[in-house]
Amino acid sequence: MSGASAEMPGQGGGWIIVAGLGPGAEDMVTPEVTAALNEATDIIGYIPYVARVPDRPGLVKHPSDNRVEMDRARHALELATAGRRVVVVSSGDPGVFAMASAIFEAVEAGPAAWADLDLRILPGITAMLAAAAAAGAPLGHDFCAINLSDNLKPFALVEKRLRLAIEGDFAMGFYNPRSKSRPGRFERVIEILQAGCEPERLVVLARAVSTPEQMIQTIALRDLQPEMVDMRTMVLIGSSLTRRVGRFVYTPRSA
Amino acid sequence: MSGASAEMPGQGGGWIIVAGLGPGAEDMVTPEVTAALNEATDIIGYIPYVARVPDRPGLVKHPSDNRVEMDRARHALELATAGRRVVVVSSGDPGVFAMASAIFEAVEAGPAAWADLDLRILPGITAMLAAAAAAGAPLGHDFCAINLSDNLKPFALVEKRLRLAIEGDFAMGFYNPRSKSRPGRFERVIEILQAGCEPERLVVLARAVSTPEQMIQTIALRDLQPEMVDMRTMVLIGSSLTRRVGRFVYTPRSA
Repeated sequence: MSGASAEMPGQGGGWIIVAGLGPGAEDMVTPEVTAALNEATDIIGYIPYVARVPDRPGLVKHPSDNRVEMDRARHALELATAGRRVVVVSSGDPGVFAMASAIFEAVEAGPAAWADLDLRILPGITAMLAAAAAAGAPLGHDFCAINLSDNLKPFALVEKRLRLAIEGDFAMGFYNPRSKSRPGRFERVIEILQAGCEPERLVVLARAVSTPEQMIQTIALRDLQPEMVDMRTMVLIGSSLTRRVGRFVYTPRSA
Repeated sequence: MSGASAEMPGQGGGWIIVAGLGPGAEDMVTPEVTAALNEATDIIGYIPYVARVPDRPGLVKHPSDNRVEMDRARHALELATAGRRVVVVSSGDPGVFAMASAIFEAVEAGPAAWADLDLRILPGITAMLAAAAAAGAPLGHDFCAINLSDNLKPFALVEKRLRLAIEGDFAMGFYNPRSKSRPGRFERVIEILQAGCEPERLVVLARAVSTPEQMIQTIALRDLQPEMVDMRTMVLIGSSLTRRVGRFVYTPRSA
């Protein structure tokens, strides 16, 4: 945070930082992000993420519900334009299926001045890598990160990418594996995995990683059931070489 | 670090933590990792990473050269077995093309007692995500991480994964893009990319991310030349929808 606003004179000293809070544990928040939160006048984000930022005099919090990413992005850009020091908080890493892309979509569609704002993205520990660390090293070689949600893209594209990732023997991390509104989707994902991988393929289910409710399970693909997974679960699929050693699961460097 | 050794009685109180130091900036090191470094008796790792840990009385540093990962892993496991508190340091995230898998390979091949050691992996900010944040949000939708090195796997597998990732229109992050010992390899990667992607496809070259020498460049694939890249360069390839907005590059959430 060394003089973000000093180096780059924004409109009236305003700036916007999109910051990753990591998966949940406070000791996984980087000092860079903590410093940004301490300099902010405004915190914007999804209700539970905004709640993680401690209150202090002069700090204005703008919690909002899920699925209003574009409203939230525009609001942040407007506040920064008006001279406020705005931190948009994401869980995990803001660049991985989180708020960074929404901010740039809003910049692209908004007034030209928004592209000149003092805007920075600060990375965070993404859920996939925190889950992998908690289980061992299941993403220890080439891997794909796939958002299973079809809110913003056709599910056919998800299916295609899954098949190609299986063909390439990538390890995989799945974000947003299940939603209440589309109950059959994860069933279809399991079908595709079971059609393309051996039944012994290892699957890591990591729920609420790094929080007091953390639960890590490693199972064989044949035993994977949709009800084992909810929206707080990170699903990792090993490559064909991923294996167990003691209580851990890992992918060798030759995979 | 809340009582790692208290919860899990290892051999004589020894433990081993494999910790990610992030891409270079000290304010991207998580407090969890800093706490582990402060409790350690021994630091093990590649010379430049060990050098990042401040000296203090009682701390023994064991820097080693590149390409001796297995020796280093066994040494760490032996020290922990003997009751030392050992932190193996990786840059970035230890689970992403770094020391975590090497440790588990050593555990698998070593004495049975090694699998019962008090062993934890602490995630860090991996270069790919720090590079993406510095450039905007080029990995803002589904992406693959591919290690281009053929030290431990056949290059044919790298080529196959590249082709499948292109076919799936994934964004991509490449680790270890070039080595002096294999000069023609990255040329071949460029050929494969140029055969499968449009010439305007955006490429981010991020060198020495988060350090004072950081250099970020976004170019079109048609302009990508091998000499633009060295082993300190993280190479990010956009999907077909990745685009520029102002000084940033991003992949929309619908990609």
